[in-house]
Amino acid sequence: MSRFTGRSGPVRLGMVGGGSGAFIGGVHRIAARLDGRFDLVAGALSSTPERAAASGQEIGLAPDRTYHDFKTMAQREARLKDGIEAVAIVTPNHLHFPVAREFLKRGIHVICDKPLTATQAEARQMARAVEASDALFVLTHNYTGYPLVRQARAMIAAGELGQLRVVQVEYPQDWMADASALTSKQGEWRDDPARSGAGGATGDIGTHAFNLMRFVTGQAVTSLSADLQSFGPGRQLDDNAHVLLRLADGARGMLWCSQVAPGHENGLRLRVFGEKGGLDWSQENPNRLLHTPLGEPTRVLTRGGPGTDTAKFTRLPAGHPEGFLEAFANIYNAAADAIVARRGGGAVAADAPGLADGLEGMGFVAACIRSSQRNGAWVTL
Amino acid sequence: MSRFTGRSGPVRLGMVGGGSGAFIGGVHRIAARLDGRFDLVAGALSSTPERAAASGQEIGLAPDRTYHDFKTMAQREARLKDGIEAVAIVTPNHLHFPVAREFLKRGIHVICDKPLTATQAEARQMARAVEASDALFVLTHNYTGYPLVRQARAMIAAGELGQLRVVQVEYPQDWMADASALTSKQGEWRDDPARSGAGGATGDIGTHAFNLMRFVTGQAVTSLSADLQSFGPGRQLDDNAHVLLRLADGARGMLWCSQVAPGHENGLRLRVFGEKGGLDWSQENPNRLLHTPLGEPTRVLTRGGPGTDTAKFTRLPAGHPEGFLEAFANIYNAAADAIVARRGGGAVAADAPGLADGLEGMGFVAACIRSSQRNGAWVTL
Amino acid sequence: MSRFTGRSGPVRLGMVGGGSGAFIGGVHRIAARLDGRFDLVAGALSSTPERAAASGQEIGLAPDRTYHDFKTMAQREARLKDGIEAVAIVTPNHLHFPVAREFLKRGIHVICDKPLTATQAEARQMARAVEASDALFVLTHNYTGYPLVRQARAMIAAGELGQLRVVQVEYPQDWMADASALTSKQGEWRDDPARSGAGGATGDIGTHAFNLMRFVTGQAVTSLSADLQSFGPGRQLDDNAHVLLRLADGARGMLWCSQVAPGHENGLRLRVFGEKGGLDWSQENPNRLLHTPLGEPTRVLTRGGPGTDTAKFTRLPAGHPEGFLEAFANIYNAAADAIVARRGGGAVAADAPGLADGLEGMGFVAACIRSSQRNGAWVTL
Amino acid sequence: MSRFTGRSGPVRLGMVGGGSGAFIGGVHRIAARLDGRFDLVAGALSSTPERAAASGQEIGLAPDRTYHDFKTMAQREARLKDGIEAVAIVTPNHLHFPVAREFLKRGIHVICDKPLTATQAEARQMARAVEASDALFVLTHNYTGYPLVRQARAMIAAGELGQLRVVQVEYPQDWMADASALTSKQGEWRDDPARSGAGGATGDIGTHAFNLMRFVTGQAVTSLSADLQSFGPGRQLDDNAHVLLRLADGARGMLWCSQVAPGHENGLRLRVFGEKGGLDWSQENPNRLLHTPLGEPTRVLTRGGPGTDTAKFTRLPAGHPEGFLEAFANIYNAAADAIVARRGGGAVAADAPGLADGLEGMGFVAACIRSSQRNGAWVTL
Repeated sequence: MSRFTGRSGPVRLGMVGGGSGAFIGGVHRIAARLDGRFDLVAGALSSTPERAAASGQEIGLAPDRTYHDFKTMAQREARLKDGIEAVAIVTPNHLHFPVAREFLKRGIHVICDKPLTATQAEARQMARAVEASDALFVLTHNYTGYPLVRQARAMIAAGELGQLRVVQVEYPQDWMADASALTSKQGEWRDDPARSGAGGATGDIGTHAFNLMRFVTGQAVTSLSADLQSFGPGRQLDDNAHVLLRLADGARGMLWCSQVAPGHENGLRLRVFGEKGGLDWSQENPNRLLHTPLGEPTRVLTRGGPGTDTAKFTRLPAGHPEGFLEAFANIYNAAADAIVARRGGGAVAADAPGLADGLEGMGFVAACIRSSQRNGAWVTL
Repeated sequence: MSRFTGRSGPVRLGMVGGGSGAFIGGVHRIAARLDGRFDLVAGALSSTPERAAASGQEIGLAPDRTYHDFKTMAQREARLKDGIEAVAIVTPNHLHFPVAREFLKRGIHVICDKPLTATQAEARQMARAVEASDALFVLTHNYTGYPLVRQARAMIAAGELGQLRVVQVEYPQDWMADASALTSKQGEWRDDPARSGAGGATGDIGTHAFNLMRFVTGQAVTSLSADLQSFGPGRQLDDNAHVLLRLADGARGMLWCSQVAPGHENGLRLRVFGEKGGLDWSQENPNRLLHTPLGEPTRVLTRGGPGTDTAKFTRLPAGHPEGFLEAFANIYNAAADAIVARRGGGAVAADAPGLADGLEGMGFVAACIRSSQRNGAWVTL
Repeated sequence: MSRFTGRSGPVRLGMVGGGSGAFIGGVHRIAARLDGRFDLVAGALSSTPERAAASGQEIGLAPDRTYHDFKTMAQREARLKDGIEAVAIVTPNHLHFPVAREFLKRGIHVICDKPLTATQAEARQMARAVEASDALFVLTHNYTGYPLVRQARAMIAAGELGQLRVVQVEYPQDWMADASALTSKQGEWRDDPARSGAGGATGDIGTHAFNLMRFVTGQAVTSLSADLQSFGPGRQLDDNAHVLLRLADGARGMLWCSQVAPGHENGLRLRVFGEKGGLDWSQENPNRLLHTPLGEPTRVLTRGGPGTDTAKFTRLPAGHPEGFLEAFANIYNAAADAIVARRGGGAVAADAPGLADGLEGMGFVAACIRSSQRNGAWVTL
Repeated sequence: MSRFTGRSGPVRLGMVGGGSGAFIGGVHRIAARLDGRFDLVAGALSSTPERAAASGQEIGLAPDRTYHDFKTMAQREARLKDGIEAVAIVTPNHLHFPVAREFLKRGIHVICDKPLTATQAEARQMARAVEASDALFVLTHNYTGYPLVRQARAMIAAGELGQLRVVQVEYPQDWMADASALTSKQGEWRDDPARSGAGGATGDIGTHAFNLMRFVTGQAVTSLSADLQSFGPGRQLDDNAHVLLRLADGARGMLWCSQVAPGHENGLRLRVFGEKGGLDWSQENPNRLLHTPLGEPTRVLTRGGPGTDTAKFTRLPAGHPEGFLEAFANIYNAAADAIVARRGGGAVAADAPGLADGLEGMGFVAACIRSSQRNGAWVTL
């Protein structure tokens, strides 16, 4: 029986990380709030006491629910009668595991930013911690929350493309093309292997691209061949990666992720081709999905428009664009659905990425590095 | 001195209209919630007691703050120590004025969906009510909340286009192309002059197009010539309108709004051309704004990208699309800014459309009808 | 019996106008040559003897077939055994009629650039000359030559859109936005009413837009209301026009043409909406046509792609873009088809715009001016 | 001294291959004719006498210049006083060398379709034949003829992107996705190694993609890693290829070519990213080139528009789309320029792909196959 059996109302949420000036913490907060299913009531937003206090006050946390130490937070919240039911972890990557462990072992559900951890060793520890806990573990591979990504997944699952043949996924950005990029708050820890992990672009955005492809196709990647580069001067981690993929059912793919591609701001794009047709979706204009049945004209499917079935993942009629935050909120909604279901007992999984995806993502990064170090030799995942 | 002098924290918000199944009520609720600056605490979501109660419960209102009569709600909330500080009005158009009056006269700020009222007579009454009140009145011409709409306005105000010459604004939709469209909840009252007002497409979406053009150019329309049609069988109100515009400073324009244009879901688009350049913005892909300085290549400005200054109106870095709800929330944020400023006294206006825009919109609809009835004669606004 | 009965092989073609530096003459020459169905063998490319001789030499005309006087050319060519069978007229507008008359009365087929003439009086004379001649008269409203324009016409004729409701046609350009535009060879005569006619943008590009709409819809325009402007300083003719249209079967439309719209190079676009669907075609990307059957996703029809039947008007498989010249050549091909058919006798019409379109175009310009002078009163065509 | 010293007027052209029903022969004929610089006067359009005669008559060749044997044609034309000055070779790949040899050794210029030959052995023979001849050898990698491809090349050469980092080139098609594709005239020989060579998609379209990338960047590819597939049932040659590239100056790249990608008709696209900016060009909408200077908004360069210098490669003002045939004609124009220059003596090279590009293309295909057979090992070119 869950420790939250019988609770009702919005999910009481805590947050670790995400102090003033951070990007992804604010995103998680809006995503949690958007549909009114979470109340953010506690946080260790920074490990610096003053900054933690100021950040907590800024977002309206009560002083006695504002912490600067995640362990204390976990201990105390677990004892409170109205303590948090879930925690969002939005720290740099190397803290994902130590933080998650504290909450998981107290039965508090975890919603964790990606990648799973900074290292493979931590990833294995995380896996044990998740498996040992009866709490839920959701990994915010938020791009899977887009309604038309769900539509694409459903179409492929229903066989509309037939046997898959080719997958093309790319995730170019340009914000690190300039040598000075890493002086920003978002940039500085991303090139530090100790805090970010061994993957640069591969870890930061390659994992998203990989996960999106996996999520939509439903197919495992059996092996890959990678060529990683660090173009930025003095950069330690990869900022551009070219990867060839072989999928379980015989399909082949290419994955490109880059942080040095001027003209691309956040250009995640997925194309899937099968015997019977093709799909094409781009994150920067996410309200349309191109579907080409073999031998027929391309159809422009729109979120909420005819020929789609995305009501569960959307809030507005067609033509009223939804974006990144709404997709992110869909991951939170999936978590809320599972959390609420667990209040009644049982171990319902969330319809969202979780531990397995996180492990795969870590495996993807490790495989890229291993292959690249061996001059592109095919390595199994 | 305002009755809310000294309050702090999120704005306590009430809502009239917006019961289960309504579209725009849910939009207002998300918009109010998105940035955490409003708490929805009271509502008369329906005039049917059972439906009001069920709808209130569904969105988490306390039973004692759930009303089925807006007048009772206004009276009681005005007396409560923690009563609402603002009310969102999301009823059919003919109720905008009677509802707003009750709250305005009690000093409760009003955030009202557009158009201002159903009739010109009510519009004049609304004007008197707003002017007699020290409360704020915001009209949710939400499309003005898009960051790149703000960018366009700022560029024109700064003279980047030079003297304006031509304005092209269009707002085509297709949801009423089918004869059966008006049986839906969103459709049925829209073709009823008693509840919707004398304008069909002109009132529902033409006012948005008109307001957007006004907001971005900053120029008054002095006269117009209109040709209205009702293509849907048995339809009482216009569902397509062709309008020519003459602007105060000599620019000319065309405005097209339609609910019978298959292929357009919510195709609001504004183009402005001046001596020194042109701008082009489309609501369905709102994260880009095309700017063509005369004699130079077109530049693709992106929300948050280089060459733009929209930080105040955006939450995410470039390439992470924001949409309709975020733009709508920007109107709520502008209201919150003004409401919070008023807590300290004074009569700060919101950086958002208000009474004047509402009156102009009513004038636009009336002028369209008058001109069309006179076979397109130019009529002054 | 035609004077060319029994001829075979490519059509011997002459040209009047189109000397060095002119734009449209070169276009006609390429269009005539593209499919190998015409041989350009004679020309009066300029009325200045030296320039005529130099221009003729430049394009490889024999000296004895190089004229500087179109009347002499018509007289002599009519007497030659291998004289020209057709003439292309690419002079400024005011010469269209005097030139055409000389060739028509000698039974030489005429392929004339648009508009028909500079004045209404000349247009009536042209009509009589064409009617009195057994020669063919083709007017190069070249945009009707695009394969997907033909596709759109066929779809509408087949009832795929049902009863038409709304037509939107626009033709914005920006090359005259700059005050200095009219000093170019292409520009200087265009603002001179004596050479260009009474219409500026309306005559130069509005007639194209009007004709395209007429050609695709197959519907006559019964009346229009126009608001013309001349934004360029010191400009005599209109450079921007806003026009409302009423069509014979009850459809309504808007037509915008402009030469002062920065960001639009040659932005001819046509949208047609009917009870059962909509079509959308843009000249600047002419290899695709959007078709939205009511209640279904938009389909991207491509030239030569599935769901189209344009083999007669195209030379390449889908995905290999064709453009302006190929469309122009389709008009020449239609002329060649008719000319060849006439060699065998009979009076086959070309599947291309001709006198009637020219007269309608002249009527359109005159009606725009008349309406605009009467402050937008509806005038019949 | 060239055997054509002193000739003047259009280049007399012969053609080998390209009989009725062939695709690329017709393209070459239009390209040669478009600008009036070639006269097609002789041909061996088929090796079947009846078909050769019928095809020759169809396109207007004189009977005594119509051959069914290319060797006879070469011999006779070389003896004629007005014999052909150049020959276009548009046969299946395995005939490129035997045909070219006959004309090259007689000093007749050769314009040859790509790829250079069917086999590496023939490629070496072709190289010797070209080097031994004083005739010109042009290879119709026609995509290099697009004006904005030339623009991109010039910008990179001028250092506008700075040091290059990443190249992405793709060339997806879908016409072979269906199992029945290879029964067409265009398809049947393409899957026969004896006639097509060892490469399928790599040879047919991969060579175009490779050449385009080489042409625009000016950088050699030093090594590649390839993964080739044959998805079509019973197909002998690759129909999809994933290739990683390493360029001489340190840039890295990906190349994807496919004939089984539904939704892509002829989707050649090139993106180049450097330290200082990025470029993006797509063949299906070839009249625009996106240029993003680092840290600035993307600029939409248009063919003939501001900021471009493509006058030499274009015939029309901006906004009047040019396409595939015009680009192809630019290759013919480059050949004509060089042929005319050679009439005056000297050995002017054409500003177009030639032997070196052909050899590189053959090397590319061979390297892809070799790498793929060795499971993606990097192989040098």
